[in-house]
Amino acid sequence: MPLFMDVHRNVDATVEDVVEAHKKDVETQEKHGVKYLNYWVDEDEGAVFCLFEGPSKEAGEKVHEEAHGLTADEIFEVEQGEAT
Amino acid sequence: MPLFMDVHRNVDATVEDVVEAHKKDVETQEKHGVKYLNYWVDEDEGAVFCLFEGPSKEAGEKVHEEAHGLTADEIFEVEQGEAT
Repeated sequence: MPLFMDVHRNVDATVEDVVEAHKKDVETQEKHGVKYLNYWVDEDEGAVFCLFEGPSKEAGEKVHEEAHGLTADEIFEVEQGEAT
Repeated sequence: MPLFMDVHRNVDATVEDVVEAHKKDVETQEKHGVKYLNYWVDEDEGAVFCLFEGPSKEAGEKVHEEAHGLTADEIFEVEQGEAT
């Protein structure tokens, strides 16, 4: 399954808000064939990175849209390195 | 130890090039107290994301500088979500 990293910028939310938003993604993702795997938040800079598997960028976007409306600014189809 | 995500844009390199660059990071990182944990590459878009632990953004930048010279455009201090 393709892997994607999305990038949210100028996010006006706390880490706790993002934790809650992510829970909603996980509740919503299945019907779009998406799995949100992990995420990283820079609260001060308002940046959020979400790593997900799914059939397409659009499928991941749909999950964010339906779950909480906070869609990403950019979505990249990525290959993952070997974790060290 | 603080956690960081760096973002490289307009990268003119193949996935294989990035794999090699990452190996050089891992060889160089110890003296700067840094640990590069994983990375994600979008070869078509020329985007690379590196996740690392270390004392500071600057320490991570130093590793890239010394290892291969391909420094990031931006570095974010992040909190990581729970992997699902």
